[in-house]
Amino acid sequence: MQFTSEQRLDDGVIERGFILGEIPGILWMTTSASASAPAPLILLGHPTLGLSKMYPRLVARARHAAAEGFATATIELPGSGDRPRRAAAARAHADLRREMEANEPVSDEIVDALVLPLVDEAVPEWQAALDALLSLPEIGGPVGYSGGVISIGIRLAVVEPRIAAAVLFAGSFVPRVMFEEARQVTIPLHVLLQWDDEGNDRQAALDLFDAFGSKEKSLHANMGGHAGVPQFAGDVAAQFFDRHLK
Amino acid sequence: MQFTSEQRLDDGVIERGFILGEIPGILWMTTSASASAPAPLILLGHPTLGLSKMYPRLVARARHAAAEGFATATIELPGSGDRPRRAAAARAHADLRREMEANEPVSDEIVDALVLPLVDEAVPEWQAALDALLSLPEIGGPVGYSGGVISIGIRLAVVEPRIAAAVLFAGSFVPRVMFEEARQVTIPLHVLLQWDDEGNDRQAALDLFDAFGSKEKSLHANMGGHAGVPQFAGDVAAQFFDRHLK
Repeated sequence: MQFTSEQRLDDGVIERGFILGEIPGILWMTTSASASAPAPLILLGHPTLGLSKMYPRLVARARHAAAEGFATATIELPGSGDRPRRAAAARAHADLRREMEANEPVSDEIVDALVLPLVDEAVPEWQAALDALLSLPEIGGPVGYSGGVISIGIRLAVVEPRIAAAVLFAGSFVPRVMFEEARQVTIPLHVLLQWDDEGNDRQAALDLFDAFGSKEKSLHANMGGHAGVPQFAGDVAAQFFDRHLK
Repeated sequence: MQFTSEQRLDDGVIERGFILGEIPGILWMTTSASASAPAPLILLGHPTLGLSKMYPRLVARARHAAAEGFATATIELPGSGDRPRRAAAARAHADLRREMEANEPVSDEIVDALVLPLVDEAVPEWQAALDALLSLPEIGGPVGYSGGVISIGIRLAVVEPRIAAAVLFAGSFVPRVMFEEARQVTIPLHVLLQWDDEGNDRQAALDLFDAFGSKEKSLHANMGGHAGVPQFAGDVAAQFFDRHLK
């Protein structure tokens, strides 16, 4: 991991760009004097729109977490931002668009083609980022994962023992096989659901919540569409990480 | 309303018993010096087990609320505790027991007979209690309603404009007609659901949440049975009242 940029934001948060192999990423930490012990880390997941497009929402989440004493980090997803496009993903997206324009229900095959290769590629990258981040003296465990493509969060929760708690956003297509992986999740989960999410199947989200194997899991459903998660729901999610990562 | 007893609990909370006509009730308030302004009030709902049986849980909720600056009050439900038994309710309970012992699904008729007369009798009593409580100089508005028989909470939210926000517990039988009343609710709602509540129909609870007309409503589902609401869920509900009653 090589740091490529550093800037101090106006509220005393240091933002450092880095590159890990060919994957760009960002690390945020508070500079406050009280943060002399290694900070617990939250990995910030995001959809496949690219880091620069997602930056405003990511930096808002990072600042919020920094105020609570957390370091946060994120990396670009495979095929997003400036990373090379994945031809199979482009085909799956074109198929998805066609089905949605025809008002057809999205088929399991297209959901699988969209999501499963992305999960297979992304998860080892997030694990490599975790190796690099946890080797920094200013970052400690335990680690949380928050948001983004929910299937990436599920897989990480199953395969990565350093992740101790996760906030998942039930707002994207979930392949049927991921329901089986969900049963293997045992870490505490805080699941956000936008009740009127236009791009989300509410019943599938409830079924997925039911499937998680975790003994502590809670579902927080709020009104509004995909991007309308209210501020207070973010505060409650922050308290969840406070309970489990400190 | 006549006060019948007064005691100071060890954390500086004053508990006063009262009688309103023939209905016993309890009022809790903090004695802390910072509470010189009239305190916002939360009405504490409860199931039909009687105030003395529910006392340990009620006083715990009252202390929690008092620490946040809220006054809390509750009254005995019709037919509960030392109040005269209601013959129709006893018949409905016997019918319910018979159906449950026979492992039959509980019929709509029995749910209606159990709940609707209770709502019709209880709601004007809670409103009368509200009149009396709000006439005390140390208590101000706005008022919240929390927990208990959810149909009483729904009716109060519809007919009582002084109630500004409600925490509802999706854990009891709900007559079909109450779904229509739920559509008329417009105040902010915070709905708690125990995901594995043995006595509760989860799908009916989700349908009821969907029916509420409120623009701000959120559903908080946690693991465990009827009485297993985790402490952190209570904290989040307290924050909801903080946002809406202060």
